[in-house]
Amino acid sequence: MQRVKAVVRYDGTHFSGWQVQPGKRTVQLEMERVLTKIHKGEHVPVVSSGRTDSSVHALGQVIHFDTPLAVPEEKWPKALNQLLAADVQVTKAAFVDSSFHARFDALEKTYQYRVHLTKERDIFRRHYVYFYPYPISVEDIKRAAPHLTGTHDFSSFCSSRTDVTDMVRTVHEVGVEERGDELLFTFRGSGFLYNMVRIMTGTLLEVGKGLRHPEDMPAVIEAKQRESAGNTAPGHALYLLEVRYE
Amino acid sequence: MQRVKAVVRYDGTHFSGWQVQPGKRTVQLEMERVLTKIHKGEHVPVVSSGRTDSSVHALGQVIHFDTPLAVPEEKWPKALNQLLAADVQVTKAAFVDSSFHARFDALEKTYQYRVHLTKERDIFRRHYVYFYPYPISVEDIKRAAPHLTGTHDFSSFCSSRTDVTDMVRTVHEVGVEERGDELLFTFRGSGFLYNMVRIMTGTLLEVGKGLRHPEDMPAVIEAKQRESAGNTAPGHALYLLEVRYE
Repeated sequence: MQRVKAVVRYDGTHFSGWQVQPGKRTVQLEMERVLTKIHKGEHVPVVSSGRTDSSVHALGQVIHFDTPLAVPEEKWPKALNQLLAADVQVTKAAFVDSSFHARFDALEKTYQYRVHLTKERDIFRRHYVYFYPYPISVEDIKRAAPHLTGTHDFSSFCSSRTDVTDMVRTVHEVGVEERGDELLFTFRGSGFLYNMVRIMTGTLLEVGKGLRHPEDMPAVIEAKQRESAGNTAPGHALYLLEVRYE
Repeated sequence: MQRVKAVVRYDGTHFSGWQVQPGKRTVQLEMERVLTKIHKGEHVPVVSSGRTDSSVHALGQVIHFDTPLAVPEEKWPKALNQLLAADVQVTKAAFVDSSFHARFDALEKTYQYRVHLTKERDIFRRHYVYFYPYPISVEDIKRAAPHLTGTHDFSSFCSSRTDVTDMVRTVHEVGVEERGDELLFTFRGSGFLYNMVRIMTGTLLEVGKGLRHPEDMPAVIEAKQRESAGNTAPGHALYLLEVRYE
């Protein structure tokens, strides 16, 4: 058996997220369908660095799977891409030690969130950015963002629909950048709770709108109550950019 | 009755083109569905500057329709956009004289064609650019392009599936520009035959590949035979940018 680590991009628009769910089209299902085909009907489980929600995109999701086939590592992307649907793509593959684990070994993840600051909706970006036609203060958002970094119990920024009990995570960076007519948030950290990036984005946008003060952020974290943070921004504007390992 | 001229954008991905066809989702059908609703069930025909093919996009399609309603001209975009599907959008509307005709009065149309010059497919642009992983000479394409301008019988660049008999058109400009990893063609002319822009693009790409010489273009026009020109480039990378009137 050879363990293969691979980097996967997907357009989440027509997927019900990463994880297999009965009756739903998911990225995991699509990857396993193709790997099973390559392995002549033998089911090949695929492990990712973590789930992504429905409609969330990925530029650098990382997975691993085991194979008995004698396919050289550099041939794997092409072998998979020939069979994968047009909205999933393997960009890299490498052989790794059988102790490598895409989820447990992930040291750091980076997400991006794209907000479209405009009065006029762009139909061509409707699946890729969050249309936000309200006046906002980017300066206030930039003042609030650094308060969300550091090691904290991030219960306030976690959806109640979770089984996780340890809510402590380390956020290394919350970047805020204007690019053209978009406001781009970058979240880099040791890991993120369920919906954490989307709730942080929703909360920062409320700061931008003047509904919250930038200096309120420490108290929001301190509260450890989902209700103290802002709305969950929609999934379709979120991108898993990169997962870092040793 | 008041005649309304409007500018329409659409993402052609999930449309079988502009024109109503039985059992198909088309932009004309969607526009007429919404206008009929606004007119309480009274059918309102919509006339465009011309058809676009299946999967072709528009940033500046122009239409007209007649209405007995007392809606001010500046309210029309919002009234329509509230009811239109997420992949069609009216960006402007104005009252015009009842003699105005979106098709017959069109003086000039501009199309853009986006070619993605890359080895690696971009799944996020799969509905918007033509993936072209071949080495090409942009210089040769730039030398060939001006030969396609002028007033000619463009039979060589017209799909045989047409009812049109007058094949003479005037092309004012064939622009070729590299932008990032894309090659953008701009076609501006008095009008274009069925598939003409896509056949010109296909032919210019064959020049780029070295399959034809830039100086062969006049002979291709001269032949007045569809077989003398190149392949028809796919529709999903074509955009109707603008229609000009008096």
